[in-house]
Amino acid sequence: MQKWNQITIVGMGLIGGSLGMAIKRNHLANRVVGLSRSTKTLTAAKRKRAIDDGTTNPKKAVEEADIVVIASPVDLIVPIAKLLTKSMRPGSLLTDVGSTKGEIVHSLDRMTPPHIKFVGSHPIAGSDQRGIEAAKADLFTDTACIMTPTRKTSKTALNQLKKLWRGVGQSVVTMSPLAHDRLLAGTSHLPHLVASCLAEAVSHQGLKKAPRSFLDMTRIAQSDPDLWDDIFMSNRDELLAVMARFEKTWTAFKADIEKGRRAPLRKRLQRTQESRRQLA
Amino acid sequence: MQKWNQITIVGMGLIGGSLGMAIKRNHLANRVVGLSRSTKTLTAAKRKRAIDDGTTNPKKAVEEADIVVIASPVDLIVPIAKLLTKSMRPGSLLTDVGSTKGEIVHSLDRMTPPHIKFVGSHPIAGSDQRGIEAAKADLFTDTACIMTPTRKTSKTALNQLKKLWRGVGQSVVTMSPLAHDRLLAGTSHLPHLVASCLAEAVSHQGLKKAPRSFLDMTRIAQSDPDLWDDIFMSNRDELLAVMARFEKTWTAFKADIEKGRRAPLRKRLQRTQESRRQLA
Repeated sequence: MQKWNQITIVGMGLIGGSLGMAIKRNHLANRVVGLSRSTKTLTAAKRKRAIDDGTTNPKKAVEEADIVVIASPVDLIVPIAKLLTKSMRPGSLLTDVGSTKGEIVHSLDRMTPPHIKFVGSHPIAGSDQRGIEAAKADLFTDTACIMTPTRKTSKTALNQLKKLWRGVGQSVVTMSPLAHDRLLAGTSHLPHLVASCLAEAVSHQGLKKAPRSFLDMTRIAQSDPDLWDDIFMSNRDELLAVMARFEKTWTAFKADIEKGRRAPLRKRLQRTQESRRQLA
Repeated sequence: MQKWNQITIVGMGLIGGSLGMAIKRNHLANRVVGLSRSTKTLTAAKRKRAIDDGTTNPKKAVEEADIVVIASPVDLIVPIAKLLTKSMRPGSLLTDVGSTKGEIVHSLDRMTPPHIKFVGSHPIAGSDQRGIEAAKADLFTDTACIMTPTRKTSKTALNQLKKLWRGVGQSVVTMSPLAHDRLLAGTSHLPHLVASCLAEAVSHQGLKKAPRSFLDMTRIAQSDPDLWDDIFMSNRDELLAVMARFEKTWTAFKADIEKGRRAPLRKRLQRTQESRRQLA
């Protein structure tokens, strides 16, 4: 198996921390270094065996890294990359774990100096919890990572980073940044929005516990608001497009219900049941 | 503990079958009788120990029952009750497990002859599967049953039936049929509709498996369409009211996203996160 000398992870939250733990557990690197603005977080990361060393100094963090993984909130990825690439050594690899890819990959493709190889990644794993406290070594086990190479991407860099994600337990699929954003708008961003609307519209007054299906459907509305406004904004066009598709079905259901059209309503429910069956 | 001589269950589906299994496991009756139109279903129910005896004859099924529980689809409850009450003995109890209560309780309150005591019930338990094959003895364990007494309800009957639901593992809450329908419109019927719209609007093309949160949010769209058109129709007013509340939040989110208003968007996400936290 591939073994790197040093992997640096920028941002010690749920994803960054879990990635460090998974890299160390799978012996993928001799050294995992964490970069964070908070020494407290770095101490916690070290205690959880997510990193071997932590630093608040960007230059020190990356100058000897074979791979740098930016695991920060979406809106910080580009500015952080801009800062770090100055200190990264020639031939080293850069990736990010952002939940949207179009804007980020476009910027980083243009901005990354030629001696550094960038490929965008999105490991699809998470939790409604956040922070290093919630990190766990098996967060990525049996999940998928979407990688988004472009015409500018080095094949070697892509293959190297595939090994990283596979090494922590993910299966890797590749697609364009746009295809990624379209896919995630439907399977992640729209569901998040819908969960938020449900949580806001519905009260379960009268029941001690809300029904399980209702809790399942609103669970992701608990996620960190500070992450999600950025995600929505950076995937605005694709999100609005899939919202329009949701509205179309919603409006059709509503008309059937308002007008008491039982047969078309049943047909529509049969169709959506079939759509759901094809997912599983 | 209360022990009845005979309890008759009408309809041997998921709920009826599971109820029989739970009654027998908890020794709540000397005899559980199942009434179904299908002898094949009755054989399956007997094999699963959901009933002691099965019959397709309504009169035979109920004439010696202490309690008759109608566990049929919502739109059949009233016609079935009309048929059965003719043969039920004086002082016996009648309840149903319908997912909507307003129309059913109103009709049965008016229709039930005075020597039979009716109270509406809704044991909140289920699955996206259906039929006697999916029945299980612990379906009701640690769930809630909503009972919907009215001015016409006998206190004794209510207390007796509370013992039945508690006996199979449920906690019982009571509220008016209207309060029930309002509560379920939000926590069950709207989520079902939303799951259906999501399943229809979204494709996960490009991923072998859809993300877990997306599967969770669309799971109930797999439920039997033939049950759900009736549920939607029989709770139309309350469902449309909560749909309007959902639309209000949806429209506000959409405007923020369209116009790129990050701060209000974040505030709205904070509010919905707080709403969701209060559920759990």
